[in-house]
Amino acid sequence: MPTAATASTAPRRGRPGYDQESVLQVAVTVFNRHGYDATSMGMLAEELGVSKSAIYHHVPSKGDLLRLALDQALVPLEAIDQDERAQSGRTIERLEFILRSTIRVLLERQPYVTLLLRLRGNTDIERDALERRRTVDRKVTDLVIAAQAEGQVRDDVEPRTTTRLMFGMVNSLVEWYRPDGPATPEEVEETTIAMIIDGLRGRS
Amino acid sequence: MPTAATASTAPRRGRPGYDQESVLQVAVTVFNRHGYDATSMGMLAEELGVSKSAIYHHVPSKGDLLRLALDQALVPLEAIDQDERAQSGRTIERLEFILRSTIRVLLERQPYVTLLLRLRGNTDIERDALERRRTVDRKVTDLVIAAQAEGQVRDDVEPRTTTRLMFGMVNSLVEWYRPDGPATPEEVEETTIAMIIDGLRGRS
Repeated sequence: MPTAATASTAPRRGRPGYDQESVLQVAVTVFNRHGYDATSMGMLAEELGVSKSAIYHHVPSKGDLLRLALDQALVPLEAIDQDERAQSGRTIERLEFILRSTIRVLLERQPYVTLLLRLRGNTDIERDALERRRTVDRKVTDLVIAAQAEGQVRDDVEPRTTTRLMFGMVNSLVEWYRPDGPATPEEVEETTIAMIIDGLRGRS
Repeated sequence: MPTAATASTAPRRGRPGYDQESVLQVAVTVFNRHGYDATSMGMLAEELGVSKSAIYHHVPSKGDLLRLALDQALVPLEAIDQDERAQSGRTIERLEFILRSTIRVLLERQPYVTLLLRLRGNTDIERDALERRRTVDRKVTDLVIAAQAEGQVRDDVEPRTTTRLMFGMVNSLVEWYRPDGPATPEEVEETTIAMIIDGLRGRS
């Protein structure tokens, strides 16, 4: 943890040891620990070991910190759908590509996705993020419906319930996956995909 | 919502309109809305429309309310393993029985299980409940390991990761299932079991 900057050593741009990204990393940790509502800029300053004005040097408000932190999860999640492999090919394979990519974002951006999944929607910034998340989720639901219509997903399940269950399994990763645990990200990705795809296909 | 009792109408045992169970129902709602730590007995009294002393008439402390509320989830979850169908038969069928029974408890006791799943473990009561939950979870992990050893679960997945993913899917029910939504509890149970069991078996 870098120590607080003193006025005499502070460079013109940013404080030594902190750029916007590392401020964000600390902010998302504190938001996840106490909840966004219960976190004050004073708590963030204490955690960073700097003054409140040093934080305001990087971001104008707590809301901006939240927005930037949520973008760390939402921008890569939204990008998945733009990939060629999400756009063409067999529907079940497009779905598998999207699920694999989602799992990777969850494991790589774990604290930011945790923040997103725990949002309560009390402010405009939160409601905007939840709406962007719903747009991502809706595209997956539409793919499950299409894959079922094309006979690539079992016909004895209701597609909306199935999609929520799938997301329940995938999203649980951010709650229990530990980067220093016994399973590698690749193993977790393969196990999750194996369970979901065979669950979707049913017994052949 | 019953109105507050006045001294002149109060019977000797309990306040009119409230017994311990209805106090618990309100308590678990408020705990889930604000978090246990952030909930005061004053907030509960306000929600109930009674005085704080009226609550103390039913339970000695906020911690006792928490313990009683958690028992509403833990007692039926712990009872599942005592059933004959959890104890004998093919391992994969014992597992299916336990998962079906767990889903039913989650749907029937949704707010109480939500409280259990969101515990942070800050107090002895919370840590005790989390330990009881871990004991339940461990039995399921052991069954998945045994079913895999007996060739009833695919051999290309790691059983501990698989169990966590299964619980991720099942536990997500308390977050998104709505009793007034389009899917009945029976449909949700069948879809969840279909996805998990075929995911566990893999392609035949």
